[in-house]
Amino acid sequence: MRTEDALPKLLGLGFSEAEAAILADHFIEAERRGKRGHGLARIDWLADERFEGRGAGRLVVDEEGYQRWDGEGAIGYLMLAAICRAQIESPPATARVVVAADCFPSGMLGYWTRQLAEAGLVAVLTATSPPRLAHPDGGPRLAGTNPLSIAVPSTDGPPVVADVSMGEVTYGDVIAGRATEEDLVPFGGKKAYKAFALALGLQLFVDALAGEDYGAVLVVAQPYADPVPGLRRVASGVRLPGDGPTKA
Amino acid sequence: MRTEDALPKLLGLGFSEAEAAILADHFIEAERRGKRGHGLARIDWLADERFEGRGAGRLVVDEEGYQRWDGEGAIGYLMLAAICRAQIESPPATARVVVAADCFPSGMLGYWTRQLAEAGLVAVLTATSPPRLAHPDGGPRLAGTNPLSIAVPSTDGPPVVADVSMGEVTYGDVIAGRATEEDLVPFGGKKAYKAFALALGLQLFVDALAGEDYGAVLVVAQPYADPVPGLRRVASGVRLPGDGPTKA
Repeated sequence: MRTEDALPKLLGLGFSEAEAAILADHFIEAERRGKRGHGLARIDWLADERFEGRGAGRLVVDEEGYQRWDGEGAIGYLMLAAICRAQIESPPATARVVVAADCFPSGMLGYWTRQLAEAGLVAVLTATSPPRLAHPDGGPRLAGTNPLSIAVPSTDGPPVVADVSMGEVTYGDVIAGRATEEDLVPFGGKKAYKAFALALGLQLFVDALAGEDYGAVLVVAQPYADPVPGLRRVASGVRLPGDGPTKA
Repeated sequence: MRTEDALPKLLGLGFSEAEAAILADHFIEAERRGKRGHGLARIDWLADERFEGRGAGRLVVDEEGYQRWDGEGAIGYLMLAAICRAQIESPPATARVVVAADCFPSGMLGYWTRQLAEAGLVAVLTATSPPRLAHPDGGPRLAGTNPLSIAVPSTDGPPVVADVSMGEVTYGDVIAGRATEEDLVPFGGKKAYKAFALALGLQLFVDALAGEDYGAVLVVAQPYADPVPGLRRVASGVRLPGDGPTKA
């Protein structure tokens, strides 16, 4: 699919103009960053899964340090867009934990944390997905590839945005035809038990806070300090996570 | 050093009885779990670093959803013990972000998150340490081995406790003589850029919230659901993170 076909195709699937714009921007940005598994191939997948009309969820608990959003089957992309917009419009004075219950899929998590960091907020986001990773020693598939994204703003240049899936490949790679289901193992080779432990821990963390359906948890905070400019000086040109298009 | 020598040795270093008891329990538990790098070898290291008398820090901002503790050079072990005790005595109604500024070292993070999970709370904890990991493609050492621990309680049996360092080995392994400084690379082999991104992201997250000295950030929350019993049923005997003594 070509970039210019994304918006018309999404409108044709029944999404509103506002929804289609959010989705198209996400998929196009994923392509630009080389994360094709989260890119345009997802439009046909959305069509097959009949996601249209499921909305963006709603805010059901709203405290200074805690929010709970209930998707009731919402499209994760649209609910996370609404959540990010809400944080930027009404940021926490210090820090806030935001639970996104019953929404799927959440897409390229760095897309969301980057929005928050570009608005001056520190953000950590993780999300669950279907169980595809078994323990490296064997047994049933217990954990999703459950990515973790961390974005930290900078007063001098772009934020640093880490966005790491715990799989050797992502399910998006499988959708995009670049990997097979058999490649879906925890990353790390001999140390794959570490990525498995992270994937399972993140999954139980989200499950414990969100409930039994797929969901996400975001921590958003005001920065107390500004560590990125100093790190970039020490790094003296080394590419940092989230810098420019990447194959990661 | 033998287990029974830990307490007298710590008392001999000038720690109070309460402090020595906290430290000895931490080191002995690390040995029991096979995490010798966080174990009894740390007592001689504490003596060399002249940590005695630095105290446990104090709570300087206390909101329902946010706490900031300032260590002013405190011993991380003692400050994290105080922080965990405070969360268990006054847990959040929903969720709380706790920043531990200017304290070092934080030890075996799973030791702290397990305490919280055994008290029925969900806990995520990360901490910074001296920069020892370079980008896999080369350049200066930019990130500590910065572990991430996630603990989730269960209504039916022990919690699941993930505790993963981003290094192929830990600095504790170097202190214990089981690895060399050259072994201190991000874990993951060909995918080591993922562990590097996590280490750097976690470090900037802590630095942005805590300030320029070493610190830690804890997220502690009430569980909304109870996912561990169901996961253990599906796992049907597969060892889950934090189950029994481990070499991880």
